[in-house]
Amino acid sequence: MCVVKRAVKYVHGYAPEELDRLVGSADTLQNLLHGAIAYPAGTLVLEAGCGVGAQTRFLLERNPGITLVSVDIARESLLRAQAAIGRGACFLQSDLYRLPFAPASFDHVFICYVLEHLPHPLDALRALAALLKPGGTLTAIEGDHGSAFFYPETAEALAAWRCLQRLQLQTSGDGHIGRRLYGLLKASNAKKIRVAPLPVYCDPGHPEMMDGFADKTIVGMLKGIEDEVLARELLAPEVWRKGVQDLIALSKSDDGTFMYTFFQGVAQY
Amino acid sequence: MCVVKRAVKYVHGYAPEELDRLVGSADTLQNLLHGAIAYPAGTLVLEAGCGVGAQTRFLLERNPGITLVSVDIARESLLRAQAAIGRGACFLQSDLYRLPFAPASFDHVFICYVLEHLPHPLDALRALAALLKPGGTLTAIEGDHGSAFFYPETAEALAAWRCLQRLQLQTSGDGHIGRRLYGLLKASNAKKIRVAPLPVYCDPGHPEMMDGFADKTIVGMLKGIEDEVLARELLAPEVWRKGVQDLIALSKSDDGTFMYTFFQGVAQY
Repeated sequence: MCVVKRAVKYVHGYAPEELDRLVGSADTLQNLLHGAIAYPAGTLVLEAGCGVGAQTRFLLERNPGITLVSVDIARESLLRAQAAIGRGACFLQSDLYRLPFAPASFDHVFICYVLEHLPHPLDALRALAALLKPGGTLTAIEGDHGSAFFYPETAEALAAWRCLQRLQLQTSGDGHIGRRLYGLLKASNAKKIRVAPLPVYCDPGHPEMMDGFADKTIVGMLKGIEDEVLARELLAPEVWRKGVQDLIALSKSDDGTFMYTFFQGVAQY
Repeated sequence: MCVVKRAVKYVHGYAPEELDRLVGSADTLQNLLHGAIAYPAGTLVLEAGCGVGAQTRFLLERNPGITLVSVDIARESLLRAQAAIGRGACFLQSDLYRLPFAPASFDHVFICYVLEHLPHPLDALRALAALLKPGGTLTAIEGDHGSAFFYPETAEALAAWRCLQRLQLQTSGDGHIGRRLYGLLKASNAKKIRVAPLPVYCDPGHPEMMDGFADKTIVGMLKGIEDEVLARELLAPEVWRKGVQDLIALSKSDDGTFMYTFFQGVAQY
C-alpha cells in the first residue's frame, strides 16, 4: 500500500464494532446502492474513500473486468480493506484533495458516504472530476440524516438521533448533505447530473430490514458515537440512553417503522 | 347522487384554488401513486373519500372494465367529481364509518389522502375491511408531512411547513400518518400487508417536479392553510410569509431540492 498523507477526524470513529457495522450495513443495502451502477469491463475506476472496503467488494463482484483503484486516508481501514479484498483492487493511502494521479486518468469515480465527512466537499468533487477522462462519470452516494423519521417517535429517540447531525457539524462534516448533492455536482461543473433518492423503509413486514438497517445500521451508528455524545454533553446521559433504547424497542416491535433516504448522484463531465 | 350523511372539518378547506391544486397534484403524481395498482375488469371497486375526483379519473382510465363506486362526505366535492367524471363512476355521499353497503360486497377498496384527516382512522379501516369479499384488497395511500426536507432550509420555511402538521392535529387528523400505515393495517386484522414508500424528489434537473410538486403542490398546500394558520396565530405573519416565500424561491432556484414521501399500503383480508 502506498502512503501519500494521513489522519482525519471521522465522526463514526474506527472502533472494531463500527467497522463491522459498515460491512454489515453494506450487505443490507447492496442492491439499493449498486443496482444502477454498471461499469464496463476494461474501464479504470477510482473508489475515493474506500474505508474498510465495505463497498469495494461489491464494485468488484458486480463489475467484472474493471481495474479498481481504492484510496482512503486512514491506514487502519485500508489494511482491513486489503485483508478482505486481497489483490482485487489496488489500495492507496492518500488525501482525497491531492490524489497522486494525472488529470483525465479514470473512466469512472465512485464515492460513497465520504462527502458528508469532509469540510470542503466541493473542493473534493472538483479534484476528483479533474481526474476523469472527458465524458467520464462520477457516482456519489450520500445519506441525509434529516431524512430519517420513525414510529413510534419518542422525544428521547428524536433527541438521540439528532445528536448525529450535531456531532457531524462539530467535526466539520454535514450529515444533511444528501439534499445538497445536486447543487454540489452542479457547482463542480458537471455537464449532466441525475440525482435520485434511494429510500430505505423498515417495518415488521420486512424483518431483514428491521434487523439489518433499523437495528444494526441505525442503532449501531448511535452506539458508535455514544462516547463522543456524552463527552461533549450533547445530551443528558439518561435521555441519550432512553432514546437509544426506544429505537431498539422500535426495531423489535410489531408496528414500528423506520425510514431513511440515501441519494445517488451521477455526474458526467 | 345519494346522500347518507354530511359535514366534516377538513384541514385543506374547500376553496376553488385548493380543489384545482388537488387535481393538478394528482396529474404530477399519477404514475407514482397508481403504478402498482391493477384491478381486473369486472371487479367492483370502492373509492373511499373521492373528494373532487382527482384520483377517480385515474382509477377509471388505468383499470378499464371495473365498476367503481366513489363515496365522499362532502357534497360540493362530489358534485365537482361527478361533473368531471360523468357516468364513469357511481357517486354517493356518505360517512365512511357507516357506509350503506352489505358486508363482503367489494373486490377492492381504494383510499387516498383520507385516513390522515380522520379522528379514528382505524375504525374507518375496519369498517372498510368489512365491506371486502374474502381475499379482497384495500389499498391506502397517505402522505407523511414529517417526511419532508429541503434545501436551502431556512428557519422560517421550516416553521411554515411545520404549521401543516400542527393545524392537522388541531383539526383531529394526523399529518404524520404515513409512518403508521403498517400498524394501522395490521390492527385492522389484515392477513397480508405490504407497505412501500413512494418518494417524491424535486431538483432543477426535474423542472416538471419543481413546478408541479414543490411549487404547485407543496407551496399550494401552504397557501391553502394561510388564513387558518394566521387566524389561529400558529406563526407570526411575517415569519409565515417569509417561510412561504423561501419555499417559492427554492422551487425557482438552480440548486434547491425538495423531498417528500408518500406511503402505499396494500392489505389483504
